[in-house]
Amino acid sequence: MAENMKHLLLTACLWLTVSAAAQQNVKFTESSIESPVVNADRSVTFTVAAPDAHAVAVHGDWEANGGTADLVNCGQGIWKYTTPPLPSEMYTYRLTVDGVDGLDPTNPFTRRDVGTVFSIFYVGGGCADYYQVRDVAHGSVAQVWYHSDALHADRRLSVYLPPHYGESGKKYPVLYLLHGSGGDENAWLELGHAARILDNLIAEGKAKPMIVVMPNGNADKQAAPGETSENLSYRPAMTHTMPSYKRGSFESSFPEIVSFVDNNFRTLPDKAHRAVAGLSMGGFHTLFIALNYPKDFGYIGLFSAGLDFSAVDCSLPAYNNMPQKLQSLKREGYSLFWIAIGKDDFLYDQNTAFRTTLDNEGVGYEYHESSRGHLWCNWRQYLLQFVPRLFR
Amino acid sequence: MAENMKHLLLTACLWLTVSAAAQQNVKFTESSIESPVVNADRSVTFTVAAPDAHAVAVHGDWEANGGTADLVNCGQGIWKYTTPPLPSEMYTYRLTVDGVDGLDPTNPFTRRDVGTVFSIFYVGGGCADYYQVRDVAHGSVAQVWYHSDALHADRRLSVYLPPHYGESGKKYPVLYLLHGSGGDENAWLELGHAARILDNLIAEGKAKPMIVVMPNGNADKQAAPGETSENLSYRPAMTHTMPSYKRGSFESSFPEIVSFVDNNFRTLPDKAHRAVAGLSMGGFHTLFIALNYPKDFGYIGLFSAGLDFSAVDCSLPAYNNMPQKLQSLKREGYSLFWIAIGKDDFLYDQNTAFRTTLDNEGVGYEYHESSRGHLWCNWRQYLLQFVPRLFR
Repeated sequence: MAENMKHLLLTACLWLTVSAAAQQNVKFTESSIESPVVNADRSVTFTVAAPDAHAVAVHGDWEANGGTADLVNCGQGIWKYTTPPLPSEMYTYRLTVDGVDGLDPTNPFTRRDVGTVFSIFYVGGGCADYYQVRDVAHGSVAQVWYHSDALHADRRLSVYLPPHYGESGKKYPVLYLLHGSGGDENAWLELGHAARILDNLIAEGKAKPMIVVMPNGNADKQAAPGETSENLSYRPAMTHTMPSYKRGSFESSFPEIVSFVDNNFRTLPDKAHRAVAGLSMGGFHTLFIALNYPKDFGYIGLFSAGLDFSAVDCSLPAYNNMPQKLQSLKREGYSLFWIAIGKDDFLYDQNTAFRTTLDNEGVGYEYHESSRGHLWCNWRQYLLQFVPRLFR
Repeated sequence: MAENMKHLLLTACLWLTVSAAAQQNVKFTESSIESPVVNADRSVTFTVAAPDAHAVAVHGDWEANGGTADLVNCGQGIWKYTTPPLPSEMYTYRLTVDGVDGLDPTNPFTRRDVGTVFSIFYVGGGCADYYQVRDVAHGSVAQVWYHSDALHADRRLSVYLPPHYGESGKKYPVLYLLHGSGGDENAWLELGHAARILDNLIAEGKAKPMIVVMPNGNADKQAAPGETSENLSYRPAMTHTMPSYKRGSFESSFPEIVSFVDNNFRTLPDKAHRAVAGLSMGGFHTLFIALNYPKDFGYIGLFSAGLDFSAVDCSLPAYNNMPQKLQSLKREGYSLFWIAIGKDDFLYDQNTAFRTTLDNEGVGYEYHESSRGHLWCNWRQYLLQFVPRLFR
């Protein structure tokens, strides 16, 4: 080894040793254990050092074996489990050590879904290639605040601006993308991978460059948990969404969002260049936004939409006169009414019933049925299918 | 209970039960355990349900008892520990269950610091009131990409735009805020709470409205771990920063960032309206940026700066001729040269030696000495002190 190389290494080691002692709690090198490891055959191996534990298990959102398995003690305190080969996707999982549920201690990558934080990994070679970062031009992502007179609050929304927005001087079409119950303005970015899906589809020429606006659909809340003046006392939970879910206030306030976006970004501000889509509760919102503003959105997407109208007060302006509103939407016209749901989704029957209503009213739509249930893997895949259809 | 109330509750419960069964892995209500709880006396109680565990401990970044304690089994599988009263701050911690290190299972709020994910909480009544969200006008935060010819890459940076930037039409001064080794363009937002500190100081009239630019200071990397085309194979670790730390490439590429910011945001593009500050490695970067571009930055902040020049190649243009460059900076003039470090910081002696150099060269500066070591609590507090001094 050359002397200057030795000196460099010595200096680096010394610096790191001192640094590590001083930087409380933060590990400065990678763990010697790498977990998870995605193997060549797309199986995934989890490894946990737990010399004092009696039982270690993994619980993930893959389909094989219900996503659950016990890790096996391989000696010297090391526990392991390898999944069967998995389809390409982004997966979330947690580990249970002696009955206490937690993250994979050596995996620094996490996502929060409603009130639970998960470790994550990607299995490439398919749709997950669109969820990961590639060497392509990237759009920018911003969290901005708008004022809602209707909801009496400053409220936060996320915006994706396509690559070259800054220098192009062009105007762009807009997709409004709505989250589900328990979600917030970060959900489509963090779990939905919306910015990466857009970057990658645009780079391949499969999607038109567009702006994507992701508002907060919880009418009683200003922003995501931790981002409001309630701070950490607003803990994420689906139950927080319920009070205002079907009161019509979010749908009625929606024109304020469109107007804010048209005033603050270079949009093409007409129906031909506006789409609205949402998952679960966001699908319910999407439907009534499309019905109440039939002159405004040329593209409509219902992803595993919550279409239980039994708890809806049909005297509210947001929800009244559905048959007339469907006829009005039909009369005004639209370019795409896109409905998708998984075979195992608990909202499957509601969606079937709603399609019967559309059929009876002669309102045209496209229907896509996927496998599995009410899961983010479906919503990412629906976005991947829906976005290339927009603004053509 | 009124009949309509009963009906509403019944419907809600039914919906939630069905929903919960279908939404794999995601809990839909808050846990019955609340942990941590910040008590009225500013002590903090941790509670963990771990009926099968033999030992549960907490490790946090508070000073009392070195931030470490065992939880006590209070029966029925519930473990508890209460800290002494803590000074107002944002705190990070992890729990160890039977030797395996993890998060607090009922706390959904986390931050990653280098390669470790921590649970977090705030103790209010002091500086942490500036780190939390208040009912004030909020700035926006964006992650944008710029091209660096010098570093041959598209690179990501974070930008804070002050409240009312969108509608004001005004031009603003800019603070360039640099992270440390192991950090990235998200560190000052996530751990440093920069956007909230700015929002709250601006709302109180204690800081001028300004733009804050937080670039990625790891010259070999395009963006934060997980946000580059290496995806999850780029695991965060301080060691990843080392190869390029003292090669001068980040400092030499800095004018590209300034030029990008001046071209894409409404800035006041002169020395009187530009500040640069950084922590640890970012303090080292700040010093050489200030020395190499003495006509560009009127305000300079070194926060626990890494000022070990022994591993620096002094023949590199970025690092050569320090005495002459100090004289040149002195001649060109500046409004503030602000240096802060903690008494227990492992870089304390380096900072003392550097202040002697400044004294010998007759270069004026302000010096602030705090308690504790190389920790985010100090860097947040330094930012809180430094920002009100800018652009006056």
